[in-house]
Amino acid sequence: MNDRFLRACRCEPVDRTPIWIMRQAGRYLPEYRELRARADFLTVCRTPDLAVEASLQPLRRFALDAAIVFSDILLPLGALGIEMTFDPGPRLARPVRTRADIEALAGRPAAEVLGCVAETVRMLRRELDGRTPVIGFCGGPFTLAAYMTQGEGRDGFPEVRALRHRDPEAFRRLLDRLASLAAETLELQIAAGAQAVQIFDSWAGVLDAADYRAFALPAVRKVVHAIRHAGVPVIYFAPAAGHLLADAATCGADVQGVCWRTPISEARRRTGGAVAIQGNLDPAALLAGPDAVRAAARAVLDDAGDAPGHVMNLGHGILPGTPIASVEALVEAMAGSAARRAS
Amino acid sequence: MNDRFLRACRCEPVDRTPIWIMRQAGRYLPEYRELRARADFLTVCRTPDLAVEASLQPLRRFALDAAIVFSDILLPLGALGIEMTFDPGPRLARPVRTRADIEALAGRPAAEVLGCVAETVRMLRRELDGRTPVIGFCGGPFTLAAYMTQGEGRDGFPEVRALRHRDPEAFRRLLDRLASLAAETLELQIAAGAQAVQIFDSWAGVLDAADYRAFALPAVRKVVHAIRHAGVPVIYFAPAAGHLLADAATCGADVQGVCWRTPISEARRRTGGAVAIQGNLDPAALLAGPDAVRAAARAVLDDAGDAPGHVMNLGHGILPGTPIASVEALVEAMAGSAARRAS
Repeated sequence: MNDRFLRACRCEPVDRTPIWIMRQAGRYLPEYRELRARADFLTVCRTPDLAVEASLQPLRRFALDAAIVFSDILLPLGALGIEMTFDPGPRLARPVRTRADIEALAGRPAAEVLGCVAETVRMLRRELDGRTPVIGFCGGPFTLAAYMTQGEGRDGFPEVRALRHRDPEAFRRLLDRLASLAAETLELQIAAGAQAVQIFDSWAGVLDAADYRAFALPAVRKVVHAIRHAGVPVIYFAPAAGHLLADAATCGADVQGVCWRTPISEARRRTGGAVAIQGNLDPAALLAGPDAVRAAARAVLDDAGDAPGHVMNLGHGILPGTPIASVEALVEAMAGSAARRAS
Repeated sequence: MNDRFLRACRCEPVDRTPIWIMRQAGRYLPEYRELRARADFLTVCRTPDLAVEASLQPLRRFALDAAIVFSDILLPLGALGIEMTFDPGPRLARPVRTRADIEALAGRPAAEVLGCVAETVRMLRRELDGRTPVIGFCGGPFTLAAYMTQGEGRDGFPEVRALRHRDPEAFRRLLDRLASLAAETLELQIAAGAQAVQIFDSWAGVLDAADYRAFALPAVRKVVHAIRHAGVPVIYFAPAAGHLLADAATCGADVQGVCWRTPISEARRRTGGAVAIQGNLDPAALLAGPDAVRAAARAVLDDAGDAPGHVMNLGHGILPGTPIASVEALVEAMAGSAARRAS
């Protein structure tokens, strides 16, 4: 098996820096747009045949070092009775804003809602047959709470911060509940064969460090602690969260993902070298074409240096308008880096 | 005159911490919504009678220590031939993305486009008759470039980062051009009577520190340098930009505005006490009601301590859904802080 990615997550030596790309199965791929012309986003997520197809599409084109299961961080909220649509962003039927709303949440077993995701992981493992590892994922508890309270994506997610100010105790209970759900989400995927997992705490960066430590971080720790026994590498990714990095690095994850705002060298320094680092090529550099991508990739690799424990990735999900040629240039640059390292 | 705000900007002693509120003339005020029912956003900006009315509305209700002229950071782009609408966010008729686009920009005198804003400042000074100072403002060059390249608001503004990767030299020229325009925008308002100015670099935080230093910061310095002779306090505000704060503090402004993610005490430490600090109460705390606001205001004042050079403000624009009672509680808490300080 190509275990370059798993080795880098564990800070073990590798022949070259592994690469995968957040949202590698996405709108920048014509074959994904075709798939989505036939089925809406939630249908693809919930239909293992289609989700496996989406997950495999980028691996047919590019020599990536990991596959990630096609799903969405909000899917597990179905277990709490939350209904939502995507057009294209998520929109919840009813936001959850008060203590009463939180106490009224349903408590269905996560497996009822996530059986499809587990099946996708199983099929993906079979299809890949060891060619690359499969990554499972969940949303960070705070990020799930941000969507639940706001009801949709919104700059700064003010409603979740309002809940923190209005009723800190209810907020804490919500986060604890979501930590359990996130842990179940990962457990199911690991049991189905996921060989690594990533916690996407996409909006943690809207908190200041004190609130992050008091509310969001304990919930992340609970998730990581719950799955530690499984022994698969855990990646924690919070973009636009440089001010939280030193705290985030104490969550128990093996890898900290950083966005393009935090250089890899700085991330290493600020986490004391205790964890591996994933990232952080600016996804916007890919909009600028192959030459710009090669220069940006070289800059990231040079900044990361030769110490073990670096997983190449973008600093955020790949953008829908990204040219295929840019992704090819990036993946080729990574293959070329092996020769460079060997020379 | 109530010069508490101007004194705090200059780090001079004050009887109590002054307060004004970003977007204090805005949708949370029923009288503003009434005004907007009669005239669209750009019409209010461009009609001095209406803009003065909007600017004065919050001062009739609350004992604020400064007025800010009602306008928009994108208004000056008319001098470059940029056309736009607001519904409610800005949408440009044609984004500016290439070197050719940049070279084709018009070069009308800013005064042609901004005469209405200068007139608003003059009328506002007359109406206020020394009761509070008047703040003029402009957008930071990078932030203006972000809207020009993207064509609308968008998370992370990828197109401006793509331009930086595609054609750094054209990007630099665009920023230099926008720095001249921003400086003219402030000059006009100062000449008309603005007693302080704020540079809103609302999206600078999407850059990493290296690109900020190489591109955005020199353009901000050019703006500040151009108006230095006028001797009015200059405030520089970049939210979600804690990673840029030490650099931003070297731009020449008297005051650094920080969002709720960066505590005032930390901002003071990281700027070496060289400048005053403005901020940073979480606007979401106001959604949570008067009790939450009082607690949050006390926390900000305690964190800021007794050293001179603090202007109270929110950490971002006030949210449209903010209850009036929350703003009253905040402004009353500031008045009460004088008694606390005197005791």
